[in-house]
Amino acid sequence: MQTPYYLIDKARLRPNMEKIAWLREESGAKALLALKCFATWSVFDFMSDYMDGTTSSSLFEVKLGREKFPGETHAYSVAWADHEIDEVLANSDKVIFNTAGQLRRFEGVSQGHVRGLRVNPGVSTSGFDLADPARPFSRLGEHAPEDIEPVADLVTGFMFHNNCENADFERFDAMLGMIEQRFGHLIRKMEWISLGGGIHFTGEGYPLERLAERLKRFAGQNEVQVYLEPGEAAITRSTTLEVTVLDTLFNGKNLAIVDSSIEAHMLDLLIYRESAKMAPNDGPEEWMVCGKSCLAGDIFGEFRFPEALKPGDRLSMQDAAGYTMVKKNWFNGVKMPAIAIREEDGTERLVRDFGYEDFAAALS
Amino acid sequence: MQTPYYLIDKARLRPNMEKIAWLREESGAKALLALKCFATWSVFDFMSDYMDGTTSSSLFEVKLGREKFPGETHAYSVAWADHEIDEVLANSDKVIFNTAGQLRRFEGVSQGHVRGLRVNPGVSTSGFDLADPARPFSRLGEHAPEDIEPVADLVTGFMFHNNCENADFERFDAMLGMIEQRFGHLIRKMEWISLGGGIHFTGEGYPLERLAERLKRFAGQNEVQVYLEPGEAAITRSTTLEVTVLDTLFNGKNLAIVDSSIEAHMLDLLIYRESAKMAPNDGPEEWMVCGKSCLAGDIFGEFRFPEALKPGDRLSMQDAAGYTMVKKNWFNGVKMPAIAIREEDGTERLVRDFGYEDFAAALS
Repeated sequence: MQTPYYLIDKARLRPNMEKIAWLREESGAKALLALKCFATWSVFDFMSDYMDGTTSSSLFEVKLGREKFPGETHAYSVAWADHEIDEVLANSDKVIFNTAGQLRRFEGVSQGHVRGLRVNPGVSTSGFDLADPARPFSRLGEHAPEDIEPVADLVTGFMFHNNCENADFERFDAMLGMIEQRFGHLIRKMEWISLGGGIHFTGEGYPLERLAERLKRFAGQNEVQVYLEPGEAAITRSTTLEVTVLDTLFNGKNLAIVDSSIEAHMLDLLIYRESAKMAPNDGPEEWMVCGKSCLAGDIFGEFRFPEALKPGDRLSMQDAAGYTMVKKNWFNGVKMPAIAIREEDGTERLVRDFGYEDFAAALS
Repeated sequence: MQTPYYLIDKARLRPNMEKIAWLREESGAKALLALKCFATWSVFDFMSDYMDGTTSSSLFEVKLGREKFPGETHAYSVAWADHEIDEVLANSDKVIFNTAGQLRRFEGVSQGHVRGLRVNPGVSTSGFDLADPARPFSRLGEHAPEDIEPVADLVTGFMFHNNCENADFERFDAMLGMIEQRFGHLIRKMEWISLGGGIHFTGEGYPLERLAERLKRFAGQNEVQVYLEPGEAAITRSTTLEVTVLDTLFNGKNLAIVDSSIEAHMLDLLIYRESAKMAPNDGPEEWMVCGKSCLAGDIFGEFRFPEALKPGDRLSMQDAAGYTMVKKNWFNGVKMPAIAIREEDGTERLVRDFGYEDFAAALS
């Protein structure tokens, strides 16, 4: 198969799914895939055996969830437009508003629909200010109980989303305690509570039993159905970006240029100034692996290899499922990676390729 | 027209074109549009009256330039792949290699084609390390005269690209002097020299006459045809991103949420942590204008308005042509802005809209 391509490995996806299913079973919580992180619908049938549906951040994600993922469809957006609300309602089981203002605006048209409100507890675990929903002046959700009380009767649930790649159960537990302390009287009026995504519970060594117990206790004490919205946790370590070395040079360091680009294909590496994960990453040869876009800083990272890289070598960037395919773009006209699936019997099949016509059609 | 949409205003594009045409005439330099910056081909016919063709950073850009923009097609890429070089050659007038290694690799197949080499003079004007081609360990071009000399006979031209939004003629002049000093003996063996893009010569107050004189002198003394590759300079101030306020709230600041997103539609604001340009930006009301994606830092900037913003208000983000449409993506499934053109008689026409089917087809 011609590189570059994203390769989704079902054998590596299944363990995440099994942990999610176990957690659902033990805790009673429902699990919805966060499409903002991963929306490659070719594997939705596979995932839907383990998950209850999808949650979204726009009308188009609502429609994709409804159309492609069996189960429940939660519709959340930071702001709905007047011209899209009818379609949002027609394609969702629940609609979650970001503010009391949006709830009021669409109160009439959403009558009879299951409605929720996003609540911002003012604390989070994000290590990045950019991604921190609790940052100062955050527009993400209603912050004050006194602003929520007047509209609480209009909704049957709340959505909290303040975890962010949080692998620390104690921190999750403490934040949930703060949420109960501050918003408990409102939570107990509700029928369902979404605790959002960002809990890294499929990671190695995560105390899944303790999380299950905590969620079950939260649900029992508050008499609510709990929802989780895993994004990264659902697809972590399942996918690679397969690339080929096109050129090598030495300019103070060994440099290898591959047929991909962080800006076009793994955008978060650029936004958060992080390094890709290479495996294996071992050996005497140290190389900087660079993209082929014009951007000077188009650098995947510096890695170790057993031998010097040369044109034609294949490299696999690890953990390339989350926030990659959903953000890929045509920067520099670099060919978009195809999307391929490795079945559990080891066979690989191409599910989408992108060509010149797609590039030209993305403009006008 | 339903927002969001990019609006390309031909009446604002023409003054840039006229400056380019004047500079061509006076200096003898040829001007090629850098597609990496702007590739909205609906206005290529209009632009081609003033420019000589296009330059590129990938096979797909080469093909777009050849297909849509009358004139010369320069083919440059940081690295060509074996499987694309034939198509690159078939669709270009010149091929420019990034390294001596790539030139050697494709020496046979490119025999008979006009060939060039990118040379990195080791100095630049970039204010961002990310975008600085002269940064340490840069992979962009050959740096040392002694590495260029052995392959100089294989090429008839060089491409230098070390300016970056450079509005300072003195700095350009000084850098060109350094280039001549260091690489002059090689330059004088060539037939053509591209000085790349990044010279902000269409900006207000730029000493265009001095630039023309300097380019003419460079061409004359070295006996070469000079090329410029304007990107931003060609389309600066020509385009707006038209958005609508969907919701407002107060959380320590006045916040307005619009039907767009910096990450999805004006990506450089996020990458370089810059603010959008709003016009007018005046009045007693101060508001933070935010996008509708889930990203906490999806903020266009803080601007002044004559009155408080409210849902339904229309805002125009200025200077939205360069590095925007070419990088737009489906993050969060936020609707991609349509692309519209305002003709010089004031009529606006939609040239491309994007819908749910485009979103779903971008994945698989």
